[in-house]
Amino acid sequence: MKPISCVQRPVVITQGDVCGIGPEIIAKFFRSPASAGCLVLGDVAVMRRAAAWTGGMLATAQIASAQDAFEVPPNCIPVLQTQGLSTSLMEAPVGRVDARAGAAAAACIEQAVRMALLDQVSAIVTAPVHKEALAAAGIPYPGHTEMLQALAAAPGCAPPPVRMMLANDELRCVLVTIHMSLRRAIDAVTFEAVLDTIRMAHRAAAAWGQTHPRIAVAGLNPHAGEGGLFGNEELHIIAPAVQMALSEGINVSGPFAPDTVFMRARHTLAHPGEFDIVVAMTHDHGLIPVKYLGVEQGVNVTLGLPFVRTSPDHGTAFDIAGTGRANPASLAAAVAMSHRLDAEPAA
Amino acid sequence: MKPISCVQRPVVITQGDVCGIGPEIIAKFFRSPASAGCLVLGDVAVMRRAAAWTGGMLATAQIASAQDAFEVPPNCIPVLQTQGLSTSLMEAPVGRVDARAGAAAAACIEQAVRMALLDQVSAIVTAPVHKEALAAAGIPYPGHTEMLQALAAAPGCAPPPVRMMLANDELRCVLVTIHMSLRRAIDAVTFEAVLDTIRMAHRAAAAWGQTHPRIAVAGLNPHAGEGGLFGNEELHIIAPAVQMALSEGINVSGPFAPDTVFMRARHTLAHPGEFDIVVAMTHDHGLIPVKYLGVEQGVNVTLGLPFVRTSPDHGTAFDIAGTGRANPASLAAAVAMSHRLDAEPAA
Repeated sequence: MKPISCVQRPVVITQGDVCGIGPEIIAKFFRSPASAGCLVLGDVAVMRRAAAWTGGMLATAQIASAQDAFEVPPNCIPVLQTQGLSTSLMEAPVGRVDARAGAAAAACIEQAVRMALLDQVSAIVTAPVHKEALAAAGIPYPGHTEMLQALAAAPGCAPPPVRMMLANDELRCVLVTIHMSLRRAIDAVTFEAVLDTIRMAHRAAAAWGQTHPRIAVAGLNPHAGEGGLFGNEELHIIAPAVQMALSEGINVSGPFAPDTVFMRARHTLAHPGEFDIVVAMTHDHGLIPVKYLGVEQGVNVTLGLPFVRTSPDHGTAFDIAGTGRANPASLAAAVAMSHRLDAEPAA
Repeated sequence: MKPISCVQRPVVITQGDVCGIGPEIIAKFFRSPASAGCLVLGDVAVMRRAAAWTGGMLATAQIASAQDAFEVPPNCIPVLQTQGLSTSLMEAPVGRVDARAGAAAAACIEQAVRMALLDQVSAIVTAPVHKEALAAAGIPYPGHTEMLQALAAAPGCAPPPVRMMLANDELRCVLVTIHMSLRRAIDAVTFEAVLDTIRMAHRAAAAWGQTHPRIAVAGLNPHAGEGGLFGNEELHIIAPAVQMALSEGINVSGPFAPDTVFMRARHTLAHPGEFDIVVAMTHDHGLIPVKYLGVEQGVNVTLGLPFVRTSPDHGTAFDIAGTGRANPASLAAAVAMSHRLDAEPAA
């Protein structure tokens, strides 16, 4: 457990890929009162351009430290200039893969992690990066989650196990496997991986104030294996992990058929969900239902890091970058979630 | 192409597993005018009991031939007694797996297929069966789809390739693979299987009057393989199948990331869908989004059979069987869909 800091700390928002919609959704978000206590880690000129693209009437102030975020007036974006960005970053073509943009996005993430580990910020909220731009810059990670995991490792220690959680108002899914082929994902569904995910989902719920969450575990195979007819991972791996978690006092059940467990967990006013969290074996089993109603409200949360990290549930949207049309709702939801998670001691 | 018959033919509804909710949803459905021109293939005593369990005030008439379905008055269920049912079928315990119920369910399906192949009915709508009850009765099929496929084979010929389509008002998904382990499903995603599915989806749309449907093909892997980083089935199998279908004049695109393609295809008044049909590689990629909003409106359609076959998108619900609480909405939607498919020449 990390002690709750007495000093109010800001939320840092990393700028993301400057060729995508990241700077624009940030500029739109800073027009709302919900942005109070947030700062941007990125490039001042890029943020100034994004302010103009999204209608202007928004100032940009370069700040010297995270705490300065509390000093800026409304309708002003406090930007901490990330160190070591390309001097030609503004020339990276909007809507295209560019190595300078990939390198800049990675530099922002690295600096944000340093700030979080030094307790200078309460949470990291990341604007979207582009995997090909990261690769073009030689960054050896397929996504934010893996990069944050590596950066969070203590010197000489293995990276901490992390899990991706996708959440909206109706559904919270924690994923056992993420960025790998489906074939590799099946091999990665091990007793330890499933049990760790259940435990992390259970601990995460405490961070948002729910100490005895009802956790449902989805199966891997159609009909959760139909008693072994359609695969035996449920019998040999998933059910034993559920049993072990139960014996630890976790309120968990399953494995359930993947095609109906998300419907059963879906929480609306007309239909109270049967479960608080669903543990899904694969990336798409979990993400398809969270995204089905639209990505505007979806938030991505990384569980297992030594700091709070959330992000919007969408990508760089190169097709509309630079038009000012991008919707900041998911970023706003990610910031709101980061406050909620920070309010309780992290696991 | 099958010629459109000049004689009006009824829709046959198979009774399903008598220990499940099948008879009850049928009895509820026959209280609505939408049941006109339908008959039940099953057991008269079972249907009489179901009528009583669902509030009574509903007659049951044993008919001698399918055409008699048009002669019964409103609020009367025309039942064609299935041949060879167990004499102790009424003793099969409601809400439990029973071999007699499994054998009876299979007998109804077999007789319905014979009627359809003789053109005595316009469509088969099947109430839910229970896989374990079928297995207990020695029926060697994991579900309706495989059983219908085998029964539809011409003597001495291989069974026709069939595909499961799940549809509701918002979304239509056709599945490349269904009842097998996820590991086997990956192996079953072949060029031929994907191309056949695209073609069958295209032809099926003509049967409901849409001659140039926009077909989206979902990938298999996270992010549709991310250019080969997360699996190469998209590059080596799915994209070539899409290209071949395109060259045949089919309006098809993809492969798209599984986690967002269903959201993009979702059709509502506020959000017109980008696609008319999504081809999904696995059972759960396709069924999770169709079922997410609830199974009440979902319909299962088998493509590729020499007759129209639809069914409700739910199972036997043993937990509420016998209580009269089961919702007939999905059965009603299945009958409505069968009329719609029969109105146009089948592929």
